[in-house]
Amino acid sequence: MKNVAIFGAGRIGRIHASNLAALPGVRLQYVSDPVQAAASGLAQQLGAQVASVEQILQDPGIEVVAIASPTDTHSDLITRAAAAGKQIFCEKPVNLSVPRARECAAAVQAAGVACMIGFQRRFDPTFNEARSRMDRGEIGNPEMLVITSRDPGAPPPAYIQASGGIFRDMLIHDFDVFRWILCADGDEAQWLSATGSVLTDPAIASLGDMDCTAVTIRTRKGRLCQINTSRRAAYGYDQRFEVLGSTGMLQCGNHTPSEVVQSDAQGVRRDKPENFFLQRYAAAYRLEITHFFECLQSGAPFRTTIADGVAAQQLADAASESSRSGQPVVF
Amino acid sequence: MKNVAIFGAGRIGRIHASNLAALPGVRLQYVSDPVQAAASGLAQQLGAQVASVEQILQDPGIEVVAIASPTDTHSDLITRAAAAGKQIFCEKPVNLSVPRARECAAAVQAAGVACMIGFQRRFDPTFNEARSRMDRGEIGNPEMLVITSRDPGAPPPAYIQASGGIFRDMLIHDFDVFRWILCADGDEAQWLSATGSVLTDPAIASLGDMDCTAVTIRTRKGRLCQINTSRRAAYGYDQRFEVLGSTGMLQCGNHTPSEVVQSDAQGVRRDKPENFFLQRYAAAYRLEITHFFECLQSGAPFRTTIADGVAAQQLADAASESSRSGQPVVF
Amino acid sequence: MKNVAIFGAGRIGRIHASNLAALPGVRLQYVSDPVQAAASGLAQQLGAQVASVEQILQDPGIEVVAIASPTDTHSDLITRAAAAGKQIFCEKPVNLSVPRARECAAAVQAAGVACMIGFQRRFDPTFNEARSRMDRGEIGNPEMLVITSRDPGAPPPAYIQASGGIFRDMLIHDFDVFRWILCADGDEAQWLSATGSVLTDPAIASLGDMDCTAVTIRTRKGRLCQINTSRRAAYGYDQRFEVLGSTGMLQCGNHTPSEVVQSDAQGVRRDKPENFFLQRYAAAYRLEITHFFECLQSGAPFRTTIADGVAAQQLADAASESSRSGQPVVF
Amino acid sequence: MKNVAIFGAGRIGRIHASNLAALPGVRLQYVSDPVQAAASGLAQQLGAQVASVEQILQDPGIEVVAIASPTDTHSDLITRAAAAGKQIFCEKPVNLSVPRARECAAAVQAAGVACMIGFQRRFDPTFNEARSRMDRGEIGNPEMLVITSRDPGAPPPAYIQASGGIFRDMLIHDFDVFRWILCADGDEAQWLSATGSVLTDPAIASLGDMDCTAVTIRTRKGRLCQINTSRRAAYGYDQRFEVLGSTGMLQCGNHTPSEVVQSDAQGVRRDKPENFFLQRYAAAYRLEITHFFECLQSGAPFRTTIADGVAAQQLADAASESSRSGQPVVF
Repeated sequence: MKNVAIFGAGRIGRIHASNLAALPGVRLQYVSDPVQAAASGLAQQLGAQVASVEQILQDPGIEVVAIASPTDTHSDLITRAAAAGKQIFCEKPVNLSVPRARECAAAVQAAGVACMIGFQRRFDPTFNEARSRMDRGEIGNPEMLVITSRDPGAPPPAYIQASGGIFRDMLIHDFDVFRWILCADGDEAQWLSATGSVLTDPAIASLGDMDCTAVTIRTRKGRLCQINTSRRAAYGYDQRFEVLGSTGMLQCGNHTPSEVVQSDAQGVRRDKPENFFLQRYAAAYRLEITHFFECLQSGAPFRTTIADGVAAQQLADAASESSRSGQPVVF
Repeated sequence: MKNVAIFGAGRIGRIHASNLAALPGVRLQYVSDPVQAAASGLAQQLGAQVASVEQILQDPGIEVVAIASPTDTHSDLITRAAAAGKQIFCEKPVNLSVPRARECAAAVQAAGVACMIGFQRRFDPTFNEARSRMDRGEIGNPEMLVITSRDPGAPPPAYIQASGGIFRDMLIHDFDVFRWILCADGDEAQWLSATGSVLTDPAIASLGDMDCTAVTIRTRKGRLCQINTSRRAAYGYDQRFEVLGSTGMLQCGNHTPSEVVQSDAQGVRRDKPENFFLQRYAAAYRLEITHFFECLQSGAPFRTTIADGVAAQQLADAASESSRSGQPVVF
Repeated sequence: MKNVAIFGAGRIGRIHASNLAALPGVRLQYVSDPVQAAASGLAQQLGAQVASVEQILQDPGIEVVAIASPTDTHSDLITRAAAAGKQIFCEKPVNLSVPRARECAAAVQAAGVACMIGFQRRFDPTFNEARSRMDRGEIGNPEMLVITSRDPGAPPPAYIQASGGIFRDMLIHDFDVFRWILCADGDEAQWLSATGSVLTDPAIASLGDMDCTAVTIRTRKGRLCQINTSRRAAYGYDQRFEVLGSTGMLQCGNHTPSEVVQSDAQGVRRDKPENFFLQRYAAAYRLEITHFFECLQSGAPFRTTIADGVAAQQLADAASESSRSGQPVVF
Repeated sequence: MKNVAIFGAGRIGRIHASNLAALPGVRLQYVSDPVQAAASGLAQQLGAQVASVEQILQDPGIEVVAIASPTDTHSDLITRAAAAGKQIFCEKPVNLSVPRARECAAAVQAAGVACMIGFQRRFDPTFNEARSRMDRGEIGNPEMLVITSRDPGAPPPAYIQASGGIFRDMLIHDFDVFRWILCADGDEAQWLSATGSVLTDPAIASLGDMDCTAVTIRTRKGRLCQINTSRRAAYGYDQRFEVLGSTGMLQCGNHTPSEVVQSDAQGVRRDKPENFFLQRYAAAYRLEITHFFECLQSGAPFRTTIADGVAAQQLADAASESSRSGQPVVF
């Protein structure tokens, strides 16, 4: 039985906490959140206790911590938890600054603790099935990747202001998918070009951010990746990618609430995609945390390490720079 | 907090027990099964205790029992649990004999306890979404229903021998779907014709059963229902229905493990349906037991009552008779 | 160059005439129709001449006649054309009376002329692809067939009155599909049960006909076929079948005008099926008449003979009888 | 009756010639091709005569010429036909050199003749339906376009050598689609970035060309377009685009030979896309040439003018340049 504490009792914290609490062999002991009502509500629901960060880090009975607090607290908590010898699961991103993320990675390594970064898409049943088929050679050598990533609607301005910009906030996942799908054999990004616009809400422009982007990456081996994103899709959360290989193509479609098909005078209609990430990635979040504990148990490497977190952040930085300068970045 | 006991620690018992154990406000206290290893294994996994039927029924702290034991024990357990004043959830069927099922229903009514019969298809997200759209009038007046119900492979002969025949064992669900979808306004079956064959395994014929059937039902209002079933589908568990209404059609498709589409020299390929009922109806089983406790809490009527269990059984009897005689049954 | 005359310049006559006129090696010489304006309009459009039935049958230069006139003229024209030594293409049905259809078949045989009956569905690219895959063994031994056949809306009462009833008018095609798909190895219908209702328009009941039907056929080998039809589908012309075999299933879906998928707040919407038979079977009509002339050229047997016409008519008779009596027909 | 001559009796010439010959009101009088056997074969098949370019241009009875000869002859034939006062239909491209294409456009304008350039994709039933829905406002303001354009396999080296490179040869169509879909309100490309690789065949690299490309275009209004192409797709000819608008998305899927769905132990399989452009765009070629003559008749403007040809060529030039320099082109 592993005793676990979670930092963060907000939207994503509650997801991870519930999944943790349902895992066999895991006991969620503490919930920590500066908002006391959030912490105590979640703790009560799951039979845990409220504790401060300090209490948790000093409790030798706590072997594992899950970090699901706001982005700007991630790197501090990772560093402190590593120093305290805890095993760490941390939501993406490590830090919006690549140098600071690298420091974190170094601290983790120095402490010799395990640290997994939560890129949940790699655990999505559809996306992961595609990766498995590639591993089995079903499409030969991967050549091109097209990622479509669209939110149902833009977040509030306050969120955007603190987000580090669309490339670091939203495309970070897409950059990780790019690396996971096209660079599994050690290939790497060599050339990246990004551009974007503000098409959905002028307020986003006034914050210096974009709401629609188009990124192209060419790898050292000449593979090509195109990413298109928007903060708004009238039909809901659109999460797809397709990868072309030398002997075939894999397309990952959206998930839907039901398999009902309605035919009437207007046409033949299926469901919109699952509403947003909490629905679409519900299974992924469960499978991700299960994987984390399985790896702790078996000693197998994590599917998503802190190095993956740093690498995705670097691509996000490059894309931000390219979109500002209008020039490509060469690595 | 409601204390619950479950009868049956086999395949379906384990499903219900896990779902019960995960429900907020519910405590799974006892597991009962004549196979002690099964009972204790399940009890241990879920933090419950092993108990005998007698112990459970005599324990005044147990408010609710879930019956997931073999079919031939259902009616006895219902009757005894009703006499002991327990609220009852029972897997289908009530009993393979309609008169005995009716006695059970009477016993339940006399005891004034709640009794829900587990027709899990009514809780399947896809099937239930179709019913909801019908309730909202999206296809007008329902006119025709086509049900396709095919297992991935035939069960072993021993199972078939005790099953009551394909109409009572397999089509019981389809008859319930017929009533749910076409008879919601009080309509009823008026004319039923059934036929069938043995096409997959001669052993099934030697047991006096069939493995492929075709049933047609006409209701009093003239609605038409066709059911086709097979014990074998090379592509897996095939669970679909489509209902034609005066202003449109609803089709319920199969669920798949992933939304990957693979294109290669052989064509454009999607996943086979979910493997069998434990996978396909995983969500349905969860939603079914949740509904049961919500109704206990709120006093709202169950979606599937013991009367539904008797009615489906009657249709199964009629279909068995019709398939033997080659003549339709008129109600 | 084969000289051809066509009888009938109505809806279906114009289809066949245009297809004939576009065939290399074929010259459409005459158009005949009691409605002179129809005949001359069509003749002029296609560079042909108007002629009477007598003129056509007496012209030794005419080798082939295509019969696309009203149903009640088919058998007379077949008999007379056979007597005149013409090769014959005739739209279904041969005659609404099976004995009269049999006489026709005998007359054709006696005259030693070729006679193909137009069951165009056997030439539909989708349906024919399914049949080809069965021929290649891709689904093993066929076991069950489900046919869905729905018109966008009921024809006018005058049409229905002269139609011979829904089984002879509309299901004749479905009976032919049944024989084509399930009886290719010499199997035959052994047991047939049909029922139906009037759900769309009471006027149809007053004409003694039905608008919704459900037919089940069991073959000598125990194969099962279910046919469901309606005179009305709010979403258009619905023409599908699916056949389950021992190692797989083939489903034939509807054709659509385009492959556009529209996603918006209402869902993910595709086109309705092609509007009606002239659109859906446009390619089938072309391929059918091409096949006819190829067989004339090569001496290969027609895919659909006058014997097929008689056999489908017998099934239609049996279904009419069964739906009236409420009892199955055993062959 | 309009008398028409066609230049070119090769693959695409035969398509246009057959379509011309089947049009009511059009008479295909001459076929011209330096390869006499090709010219006479096609002429004979369609009831036309062989003639030289000179004979055709000097024949005052010829009102219209269709140019379907090799790419490097297009601009000369346009110029000469314009000087001879013929109405002109010409296959894309006008010329691989933009200045020369502009001269052609000027010559056409000076001569006051009609000249349509054959961008057949604008006449594809699926693509055109998408455009029509945009015109009806069904997805609001267009914001992003993703074009996927993949050939089943690379052409022979000799073809590639004379092709002007992949951007001018293959993406010319995609650039026209970009303008048609995103720039219908007068918007224009402002920024273009292109990159590419050789992944399928090193011989292509040795010819100085690429076989996989990724292009991004941003318009003056900030709309984004991404194009991904490959000379090889193991599953056939892949021709899709999707356009995201402010209130919805339109996706244009591939066309397939049939609507058969095969389910077996391997999965649920549909047809591959239509094999190549002659199949996929068969309807488009027919509708294109019909449109051309309808416009000649009515005086309505062509959907694709010589100006469109020049504009697409400019984008192809920019993409070639960008892919060489690694830098974006700003217009």
